[in-house]
Amino acid sequence: MTGGGECLAIVAAGGSVPVHVAEAARAAGRPVFVIGLDGVADERLRAFPHEMLKWGQLGRARELLAERHVGDLVLIGTVKSRPDFANIKVDLGAVRLLPKVLALLVGGDDSLLRGVVKLIEDMGYRVVGAHEIAPDLVARRGFVVGRRLSAAARADVGVAFHAARAVGGLDIGQAVVSVGRRVVAVEGAEGTDALIERVGVLKASGRVKWTGRSGVLAKCARPNQDLRVDMPTIGPATVEAVARVGLAGIAIEAGRVMIADRPQTVALAEQTDTFIIAEDDRDPVDGG
Amino acid sequence: MTGGGECLAIVAAGGSVPVHVAEAARAAGRPVFVIGLDGVADERLRAFPHEMLKWGQLGRARELLAERHVGDLVLIGTVKSRPDFANIKVDLGAVRLLPKVLALLVGGDDSLLRGVVKLIEDMGYRVVGAHEIAPDLVARRGFVVGRRLSAAARADVGVAFHAARAVGGLDIGQAVVSVGRRVVAVEGAEGTDALIERVGVLKASGRVKWTGRSGVLAKCARPNQDLRVDMPTIGPATVEAVARVGLAGIAIEAGRVMIADRPQTVALAEQTDTFIIAEDDRDPVDGG
Repeated sequence: MTGGGECLAIVAAGGSVPVHVAEAARAAGRPVFVIGLDGVADERLRAFPHEMLKWGQLGRARELLAERHVGDLVLIGTVKSRPDFANIKVDLGAVRLLPKVLALLVGGDDSLLRGVVKLIEDMGYRVVGAHEIAPDLVARRGFVVGRRLSAAARADVGVAFHAARAVGGLDIGQAVVSVGRRVVAVEGAEGTDALIERVGVLKASGRVKWTGRSGVLAKCARPNQDLRVDMPTIGPATVEAVARVGLAGIAIEAGRVMIADRPQTVALAEQTDTFIIAEDDRDPVDGG
Repeated sequence: MTGGGECLAIVAAGGSVPVHVAEAARAAGRPVFVIGLDGVADERLRAFPHEMLKWGQLGRARELLAERHVGDLVLIGTVKSRPDFANIKVDLGAVRLLPKVLALLVGGDDSLLRGVVKLIEDMGYRVVGAHEIAPDLVARRGFVVGRRLSAAARADVGVAFHAARAVGGLDIGQAVVSVGRRVVAVEGAEGTDALIERVGVLKASGRVKWTGRSGVLAKCARPNQDLRVDMPTIGPATVEAVARVGLAGIAIEAGRVMIADRPQTVALAEQTDTFIIAEDDRDPVDGG
């Protein structure tokens, strides 16, 4: 942990999580400077010391980090579409960094992220996770929403959580769905929303059968995942989809999966009678 | 192995594989009797001693097995849709078996199959695999179609085969797709055809990027799978889908994955320049 006096830079893409992180830092009395992605970052971030930059203004970003005496840096937020590299205007600082950046871009998603972190650390900044600034982004072991599980739900939590951990260990995906104690869908590159949609299709086609609310989505981090910059996330859209296809609830890995828009996520789960439980490798929660 | 003199019963659902099995048995000089599922079994089976029965005529099936002095029995063929239980007419023998059959039906797919095998064995018959009668239904280690792999294809075969084995070991699915050395799709309950379609969607949406032919579908048996009655299968539709979405080829587990309609499957793979390779846990085929 670094002292509260040094400035925390929040490099912010889209969504409400960067706002939440900025608020948490401010509430802790920590100076904050926001570098937002122009047109993508939430407008509420303008309430904090900030500058909005475009893709390619890496030189300006570097200047800002130096001017503001930044020590720690958080990279947070969602990017819905990749930048159109043909239309990026690069500033002089970006040109200087270009060989390093291009070397990163050829390596694919995972190595890109690792490379960006290394680049920032090589400049002398420390990359910290959003959950280190706002610990309520993750959940402790136990119920987040709900009070107890049916025996069937308890069994599906166990099957899905175990499978999600194992599949993550193979570096495949982060999420699986179990219905009737059987893994029916495993996430690959399609993402969790598409995974849940697929379960809906399996149900509609009769390949997986259940009535009422049954089955569990489990989501875990991979063992080697860099949680500072790449944390598995659930949010209101996850709860909405889980409830819509008729799954009973969601099991997330305690401390290692982010709950975005937590108040809205929790409210929606309560409204739709969808449980959210945080598990770890100890005894199952509500295992009795 | 039992002697060639005893009658082999082929209990046949749909598709060409039961015909191939009947022909292989006849070619080996073995007496055959076909019990076909009426309206589902291939009409070519009428060239063999046979009787076509409806779902529910279990009593008649049992009579036939006794009358024909059956020793070994093969259960083979595809069932596209489950019988409509409300419209099944059960014969007297089926009524007698009903308690056992109902006990099976409540247990889900896997235990159903295990239960059916046990029921047949308890009657004194031996259940044998179609590949024990027609060994060319499975492939030995090596190329089935193709002569050598690019380095990229070799890498994807390794990643996909390893992941398919591991996912099978977790009792999840039988197939995975790797593109660019990364597992991009894992089979759950949706089946292999839907898995390949999903890879096409991932490509069309830009979530997984490649040009030309790249990536590998791997398919393996689960460690505990009863290969006598439930063998993973590829066929012409698999090859067609793999070629259509632009994957480079297919890796199957040697000896434990069935190639249905082998001549047609091989011809289609050759026409579409799709490799098919059979791997086992020894050194990779064409690993140099």
